[in-house]
Amino acid sequence: MIEAILWRGDHLDLIDQRVLPFEHAYVSCWTVDDVASAIREMVVRGAPAIGVTAAYGLVLALRAAKSPADFEAACQRLAQARPTAVNLFDAITYMKTVVGDASPGPQICAKAEAAARQYHQDDLEMNRAMGRHGAAFLEGHRQVLTHCNTGSLATSGWGTALGVVRQLHEERRLKALYADETRPFLQGARLTVWECQQDQIPVTLVTDGMGGYLMTEKKVDCVIVGSDRIAANGDVANKIGTFMLAMAAKYHGIPFVVAAPSTTVDTQTPNGSAIPIEQRPPEEVREIRDRAIVSASTAVANPAFDVTPAELVTAIVTEKGVFHYPYDFRKPS
Amino acid sequence: MIEAILWRGDHLDLIDQRVLPFEHAYVSCWTVDDVASAIREMVVRGAPAIGVTAAYGLVLALRAAKSPADFEAACQRLAQARPTAVNLFDAITYMKTVVGDASPGPQICAKAEAAARQYHQDDLEMNRAMGRHGAAFLEGHRQVLTHCNTGSLATSGWGTALGVVRQLHEERRLKALYADETRPFLQGARLTVWECQQDQIPVTLVTDGMGGYLMTEKKVDCVIVGSDRIAANGDVANKIGTFMLAMAAKYHGIPFVVAAPSTTVDTQTPNGSAIPIEQRPPEEVREIRDRAIVSASTAVANPAFDVTPAELVTAIVTEKGVFHYPYDFRKPS
Repeated sequence: MIEAILWRGDHLDLIDQRVLPFEHAYVSCWTVDDVASAIREMVVRGAPAIGVTAAYGLVLALRAAKSPADFEAACQRLAQARPTAVNLFDAITYMKTVVGDASPGPQICAKAEAAARQYHQDDLEMNRAMGRHGAAFLEGHRQVLTHCNTGSLATSGWGTALGVVRQLHEERRLKALYADETRPFLQGARLTVWECQQDQIPVTLVTDGMGGYLMTEKKVDCVIVGSDRIAANGDVANKIGTFMLAMAAKYHGIPFVVAAPSTTVDTQTPNGSAIPIEQRPPEEVREIRDRAIVSASTAVANPAFDVTPAELVTAIVTEKGVFHYPYDFRKPS
Repeated sequence: MIEAILWRGDHLDLIDQRVLPFEHAYVSCWTVDDVASAIREMVVRGAPAIGVTAAYGLVLALRAAKSPADFEAACQRLAQARPTAVNLFDAITYMKTVVGDASPGPQICAKAEAAARQYHQDDLEMNRAMGRHGAAFLEGHRQVLTHCNTGSLATSGWGTALGVVRQLHEERRLKALYADETRPFLQGARLTVWECQQDQIPVTLVTDGMGGYLMTEKKVDCVIVGSDRIAANGDVANKIGTFMLAMAAKYHGIPFVVAAPSTTVDTQTPNGSAIPIEQRPPEEVREIRDRAIVSASTAVANPAFDVTPAELVTAIVTEKGVFHYPYDFRKPS
């Protein structure tokens, strides 16, 4: 199992997910601004991994702070890194609660470091719980389609949606896993396929337009994805392309399941239309692995996420259990 | 307007669509086997363009034939080039009817050449008629999403779905055109975007997973695609990914329109499940413009087409007019 986030005591090493699987490089972050850049530039990506990275970033911020105001300013800069994944804001809120209004000093720094390590550890345990709940829910389903990367690289090491797949695989219940390549950033091809190959999980790569075909051909009998933010009503923001799969799953009458830690549910966001959707640079669409596929002047739209309406989501799996439409996240249904 | 198919009297020059828009190269075909290779390897692609190319290929075959059996064998070899687009078979049937059981000789060769030129010319005229019918049908719709390439390069020079877009543009009714990049072969990015840029049609490139987002955001109010084969019941085979857009259009209640010459309707094929779906080489998915996106041993599925059930198709536009579900192709409804 690959670890994307390595806390070194005095700095953070992040596996560089922009160049995987062709290069295994690490980016070292020594300051909170290094961490913010790494998140913005997608050295680290995946909502839970962004949260864990941010928590460690604030340990570095606190150590460098000369006053509570310095720490607060660092929190604000970090919060600008990416807009959609709620985990970033959850981690910042968590660390702010731990630090409180304490003046910077060795004691609070030690407390913050312990809190960040705990946050990291908790994510792993939530992943494992989600895997068990999700696999139990998918009784009778053995042919999975997934989108983007929700595995070790996207989390603290097990995975959300891919954690459910891992659990199915461990229980010898996985017949086939199809991974969408997930343009433009190719998280599916570069990260999910590679991760699965590392861990001997049988995986077949497809392009993002093939899901409907696979469902009609009965090669896929369920879809499992992660989420960057779930609104209070159950609308799910996730990597662009997710919504297309949800509509296809609905048309074919197969389950469309979202696996995410309960912290992904943002009770402050009433529904999907209130979730800010990040618009990323056009070059990500114009180029693939640094090779142009169109002229540099080509107009491009590059929304990084889309919102799947709750009515298309068969179940949302968190570490607490399985939720069903209409969604009430106070208790699993 | 670009011409992809140039008949030179003694050979056929095809613009090499594998390397556009980065290289403008031509592949010269001097024999019917050159033509079959060019179709198989996607030097030329797009169902109508394949048909026109095949017609000229059989002129070359007839000139080289020493007996009717030689011509018949050439027809059979050419029919193996690609399985899904019915236009290939339509062109072969047409040329066989023209040639009949005549023995090869100057007179029948001249007749065959004239017939191929006519087939080419007819395609262009059908395109223009489709454009007019389609644009009339889309009254009130101004924001188009299209998939793959159905323009000059895919036809004899105007386009099927993109012909409708050209007509809308000519009538100053086109507010926005979004082009899916169309992985794996990138016909949308490399060909549609380039073609539109050549002809000053405003176009925005998106990835194949963005259609649902664009519909929800009301940036797209209709989808127009071409087809490689339409079954007698109206099921539509087209470039992989088309079906995903049809489901998304249905969910959003916007028109999903197919534009194709009436020869695309294959009355011998009762429904979509009877349409053979070509499975193409895995390298097309593993690589993008010759750069690997996964390891060379990665398992891949690469169906080149999918089938959109007739019930998802709002209208089918041919040169004869507009047809509606439930489809009866004897007369426009």
